[in-house]
Amino acid sequence: MESLGFYQKLLEPLLPGLLGVRLVELDQRRVVGEMLVRPDLCTSGGILHGGAYMAFADTLGAVGTILNLPTGSRTTTTDSSTKFIGSAKVNTTVVGESTAIHRGRTTMIWQTSIRSSEGKLCALVTQTQLVLNGE
Amino acid sequence: MESLGFYQKLLEPLLPGLLGVRLVELDQRRVVGEMLVRPDLCTSGGILHGGAYMAFADTLGAVGTILNLPTGSRTTTTDSSTKFIGSAKVNTTVVGESTAIHRGRTTMIWQTSIRSSEGKLCALVTQTQLVLNGE
Amino acid sequence: MESLGFYQKLLEPLLPGLLGVRLVELDQRRVVGEMLVRPDLCTSGGILHGGAYMAFADTLGAVGTILNLPTGSRTTTTDSSTKFIGSAKVNTTVVGESTAIHRGRTTMIWQTSIRSSEGKLCALVTQTQLVLNGE
Amino acid sequence: MESLGFYQKLLEPLLPGLLGVRLVELDQRRVVGEMLVRPDLCTSGGILHGGAYMAFADTLGAVGTILNLPTGSRTTTTDSSTKFIGSAKVNTTVVGESTAIHRGRTTMIWQTSIRSSEGKLCALVTQTQLVLNGE
Repeated sequence: MESLGFYQKLLEPLLPGLLGVRLVELDQRRVVGEMLVRPDLCTSGGILHGGAYMAFADTLGAVGTILNLPTGSRTTTTDSSTKFIGSAKVNTTVVGESTAIHRGRTTMIWQTSIRSSEGKLCALVTQTQLVLNGE
Repeated sequence: MESLGFYQKLLEPLLPGLLGVRLVELDQRRVVGEMLVRPDLCTSGGILHGGAYMAFADTLGAVGTILNLPTGSRTTTTDSSTKFIGSAKVNTTVVGESTAIHRGRTTMIWQTSIRSSEGKLCALVTQTQLVLNGE
Repeated sequence: MESLGFYQKLLEPLLPGLLGVRLVELDQRRVVGEMLVRPDLCTSGGILHGGAYMAFADTLGAVGTILNLPTGSRTTTTDSSTKFIGSAKVNTTVVGESTAIHRGRTTMIWQTSIRSSEGKLCALVTQTQLVLNGE
Repeated sequence: MESLGFYQKLLEPLLPGLLGVRLVELDQRRVVGEMLVRPDLCTSGGILHGGAYMAFADTLGAVGTILNLPTGSRTTTTDSSTKFIGSAKVNTTVVGESTAIHRGRTTMIWQTSIRSSEGKLCALVTQTQLVLNGE
């Protein structure tokens, strides 16, 4: 398993880099990340845009899946379902924790809770990752 | 109803602006937008990141809802569900078309199809918007 | 492709039979069915139970997938997402129309609209079917 | 708060009664139920039909919401999203545990895990309940 720094570097030139996603902890059952609620990640009213939550969660769940892939396999998200529960204010930091619900040969399911800096649940994202053979 | 330019300007300093979402057409039943698949919107492999699709759709569906809100009301997304179907390559443009499935007093439901520049369906996003009284 | 009667007979001893699902039309892109809103399919208040909508749709989308399976393959639903929009009254009949959104080698996506006898949209169900090799 | 027997009796003439849902435990944060996988709740292959899981979960989450409603309010499911993970065989019993993710004034979110008699996770259902004023 590659190090946290390896995956962080991989994300930098991609969408998670643009959004400022920082990986904090990762193992094969759980991936934790942080994201600063910058003004340009918000929707009107100075709160985190729904799309930023979903992109953040999609990143964490995909990293978690990659940590479990057999050599020579790759993954793609097929389904993602989000419940928006609370709001996160501009200039605070949200924390996302993604845990494996199912790690099978064909599909993996990861669920991500995103919380405000005070620990309030803001969004719950459940995603299905398809495991594909070949590069 | 405000003009397309009004909404485009509103989006610029926010997440849709960061992602380069451009509104193309809008009325109370349908909102169309475009987004260039920039390298920094991608995931590994040079294809549009799942989170970018979801943020794009969330934006279109929210704009559509706002166009239908009674004066003094506001809206928030409560649920969003996405099927990822195909991939869109870097440096192409995706087109999103969001149509109203339901426009009620309490909730509105918008469904967004995102297609590649060749017209292939890449993602289907269905979202529920709660209508809230008061600013 | 087997006839409508073949599939109807297959469903009879199973959950769709218990619920009274009747297939009305089917081809590889579209499956239509009907269901009488019996009192024992309702929730309190004399309206169709949310679970009955979801079971009805799941049946139609699965039949549609089966009509597209290569020989020797089978299918299972991996994801189902429902928006509940309106209610259907006891002793009326609901009509479900399931259409193929995507028919790939690995997954198929079907979306089902369930309407009241007056044609009002009551529920929209989008489901992902995984295609598995072998019996 | 009414007793478990009160809610069980309420369900009997309705869809949950038809499916044989038995409430086992309930309080304002958690509702547990059981369901025998009868042959007429199955799909082909002698395994529980996807629709039976969804109807079972929808029932538990709705009961949980009702336990939290202010006097004079009612509830309706607006969204339900299911991940199907494993299968439950005919003539076994599945156990569903629904827990409150969010209990707000406008919406409540309940998530239900359905497990086989051996404790294997078969389905995960997340649903949004809208709280409506008036009978």
